[in-house]
Amino acid sequence: MNQHDEVEIRHLAGQILKDYDQGRVIDKMELYDQPDKEAIVEIINKLISIVYPGYYRDRFYKIYDAKTHLCVMIEDAIFRLSKQIRMVLPYGEEFAGLSDEERSEKAQALTHAFFKKIPQIREYLDTDLQAILDGDPAARNKDEIILAYPGFFAITVFRLAHELFELKVPMIPRIMTEHAHSLTGIDIHPGATVGKYFFIDHGTGIVVGETTVIGEHVKLYQGVTLGALSTRGGQKLKGIRRHPTIGDNVTIYAGASVLGGDSVIGKDSVIGSNVFITSSIPEGTSVSVKSQELRIRHGKGVPDSESELEQTENWSDTL
Amino acid sequence: MNQHDEVEIRHLAGQILKDYDQGRVIDKMELYDQPDKEAIVEIINKLISIVYPGYYRDRFYKIYDAKTHLCVMIEDAIFRLSKQIRMVLPYGEEFAGLSDEERSEKAQALTHAFFKKIPQIREYLDTDLQAILDGDPAARNKDEIILAYPGFFAITVFRLAHELFELKVPMIPRIMTEHAHSLTGIDIHPGATVGKYFFIDHGTGIVVGETTVIGEHVKLYQGVTLGALSTRGGQKLKGIRRHPTIGDNVTIYAGASVLGGDSVIGKDSVIGSNVFITSSIPEGTSVSVKSQELRIRHGKGVPDSESELEQTENWSDTL
Amino acid sequence: MNQHDEVEIRHLAGQILKDYDQGRVIDKMELYDQPDKEAIVEIINKLISIVYPGYYRDRFYKIYDAKTHLCVMIEDAIFRLSKQIRMVLPYGEEFAGLSDEERSEKAQALTHAFFKKIPQIREYLDTDLQAILDGDPAARNKDEIILAYPGFFAITVFRLAHELFELKVPMIPRIMTEHAHSLTGIDIHPGATVGKYFFIDHGTGIVVGETTVIGEHVKLYQGVTLGALSTRGGQKLKGIRRHPTIGDNVTIYAGASVLGGDSVIGKDSVIGSNVFITSSIPEGTSVSVKSQELRIRHGKGVPDSESELEQTENWSDTL
Repeated sequence: MNQHDEVEIRHLAGQILKDYDQGRVIDKMELYDQPDKEAIVEIINKLISIVYPGYYRDRFYKIYDAKTHLCVMIEDAIFRLSKQIRMVLPYGEEFAGLSDEERSEKAQALTHAFFKKIPQIREYLDTDLQAILDGDPAARNKDEIILAYPGFFAITVFRLAHELFELKVPMIPRIMTEHAHSLTGIDIHPGATVGKYFFIDHGTGIVVGETTVIGEHVKLYQGVTLGALSTRGGQKLKGIRRHPTIGDNVTIYAGASVLGGDSVIGKDSVIGSNVFITSSIPEGTSVSVKSQELRIRHGKGVPDSESELEQTENWSDTL
Repeated sequence: MNQHDEVEIRHLAGQILKDYDQGRVIDKMELYDQPDKEAIVEIINKLISIVYPGYYRDRFYKIYDAKTHLCVMIEDAIFRLSKQIRMVLPYGEEFAGLSDEERSEKAQALTHAFFKKIPQIREYLDTDLQAILDGDPAARNKDEIILAYPGFFAITVFRLAHELFELKVPMIPRIMTEHAHSLTGIDIHPGATVGKYFFIDHGTGIVVGETTVIGEHVKLYQGVTLGALSTRGGQKLKGIRRHPTIGDNVTIYAGASVLGGDSVIGKDSVIGSNVFITSSIPEGTSVSVKSQELRIRHGKGVPDSESELEQTENWSDTL
Repeated sequence: MNQHDEVEIRHLAGQILKDYDQGRVIDKMELYDQPDKEAIVEIINKLISIVYPGYYRDRFYKIYDAKTHLCVMIEDAIFRLSKQIRMVLPYGEEFAGLSDEERSEKAQALTHAFFKKIPQIREYLDTDLQAILDGDPAARNKDEIILAYPGFFAITVFRLAHELFELKVPMIPRIMTEHAHSLTGIDIHPGATVGKYFFIDHGTGIVVGETTVIGEHVKLYQGVTLGALSTRGGQKLKGIRRHPTIGDNVTIYAGASVLGGDSVIGKDSVIGSNVFITSSIPEGTSVSVKSQELRIRHGKGVPDSESELEQTENWSDTL
């Protein structure tokens, strides 16, 4: 690198440093007051090790006694989570104006409240595991589901994040579910309410909005949206019920959308592939798209037709 | 941390440890008998280095002689894969009741059988690379495809996993393809059968089911599902042909679904965007959705219309 | 491992090494002339730290003075990017036939030109951040968007990659946007042109093609494709305008597709969910799919119907 380059580089750096002085949000410099995304991902991984103690081993310890080891891991996870919660508390309106000491105490109390929920979270996850095994003919055994199924991973992270959301911890629940979204393509807002025996298959493209309520034994396939109608109200819609209610034993096949806070899908209903619904459906109803009108052209001398293909009446699935 | 907190944390840890004693699958503790997901991801990366020797370099060695280095890497990959296969064998019905020694020998034999397939896997991958270069006007050169294209990555991992699936190795093939799914949004079950010159573009949301059979020179765009009809039979459907057959030279555009084990798409056919098919199509057929009926509203004094938009008859693509 | 195994392993390695001698692209061995994907991901992370200086801290330094630290980081990023650009230059037709020294100088000059653009990139990103906050009722605050929103991450990486694309740097821009695609499911080609206040929500499955032009204040929801019509011309179509033009203040809801280089969506228009468009739309137009014809079956003694569900006229959203 010659002298000219050095001058040029220093000039470039100077221009960028000057650009930080405009006082915009992206110019923020309070380096020690942000939650640390990587630290939160580490916490997620530790929580998963705690939830499924036999499946994710810590590679850096020689483990003589699994329970002693788990006890150390739990204490460590409590310490780390409490530290991150302490950092995000100023983002929550509920926690405004706390002194440093009050903030630490609040973070500790919230962390304890969260860990108290872990046995209940595990009870729910055990039902989700059972639902996947019962519903998926490609599933070989439960261990494969725990180790390889993206739907089960997304549900696990969602159930953990949801309890923090319920405790009104800011930021961290969303960072957790967006981490799962990044790894699975499944986007479940931590605010959603989801009953036991929740089944997701394949999952890429699923969106479940913040105020969605889902009953027990519900199955969702890839590309399903449980969303809002127009949100052109933007920030004014904050806190209002915008997403649907899905009853017990409902199955929603690939690519279907159910939209709107007033839409209630009655229990035991089946929503077919690509159905687009913005209103309520009574119990025990099956809804499917009438066969598409297709244009069919044959290659070699066969006359073209514009008829419907003969389609089976079976419900589409995607496994 | 005050004394009260210490007592509280110990109590919390105790509650969670107690929760492990319920004998559920998620309570499992045989720490050394699980396959190690991270170790399998490492093996995938090593296999890719072996398959494309000039593209993924090992950053930790100073490489004097590429061939010597590759030889070491191949021996290392054999050792690691054999170790993981040894661990998963008990999951396979075919390998039940083996002694420890027999298990080691079987793992070694399966690993060797797999590595014997690598030249053939590389022959297929070379045709896939050619298919992408020929089909994608945005592709600059083959190196860019190897280094940046998610479709090619997913195909690579699938072809490796498929050979392990064919050898009836449990768990590992699915962990491999789910790793690719996580990185690409492309979900190809390792059980699928896929011919040469396989082309995937963009790819997010693609699902290819376990018993799918795909011919040569087939192109799939993002969001395509090759799936099953209702799987409400769950575990009872295990092993039955549930997914379609796609002939040679078939192109399936974005968002289309072909479902069911009896659906055969004849060779040289084209399936348009968003077409939903649950039956067979003869050779040389083009199928597209008839133009959607759209509702069009104009903003400023122009009368509204409910007519069709004039749509071109071109086949949609997604590049 | 017994002696037989050793012989076998050496034989296997030999077979694979022999397979490298066929002279195909995948057999390439010039180990030091490839761009390094991991190094490029490191550069992306450094660039993001520079663009949002307060949000991504370098965990390995104790930072006494943020500005000094950032200055060091900028110089380091310049050095690393220049090194990678040097390696990819031979892939670009524009840079053919340069001597080693000219190549180094060109790489340095391109790197400087790129860093000169960073203040302008930051100006655009600040508007994107504002657009997300204004449009998403679930967004709590700007920090949450920077730390957790995949759409904002994808836009950030795209805006960085686009400037390198404009400078005709080969390979690296695409490796950058494919990295973002892998983490978010959002596939924006670095060649696309995108105005200020760009809003992406959820985002999984979005595809924006190479020659797309997008105005200001545009909103895209998950699963939107801005794509090409048939690309069966393959490499012959390289460089031709294949993708649509989207005017200012246009909103395109989930799952809609706009295809073709002649399709222009006039400003202030709204394209509803799942609309499929291959032609132009005048300014101020709203286009939605007419209500689907659905087949509805009731479970217990209620007569079946084939009527339309009563659907609201609201525009679907997906939040």
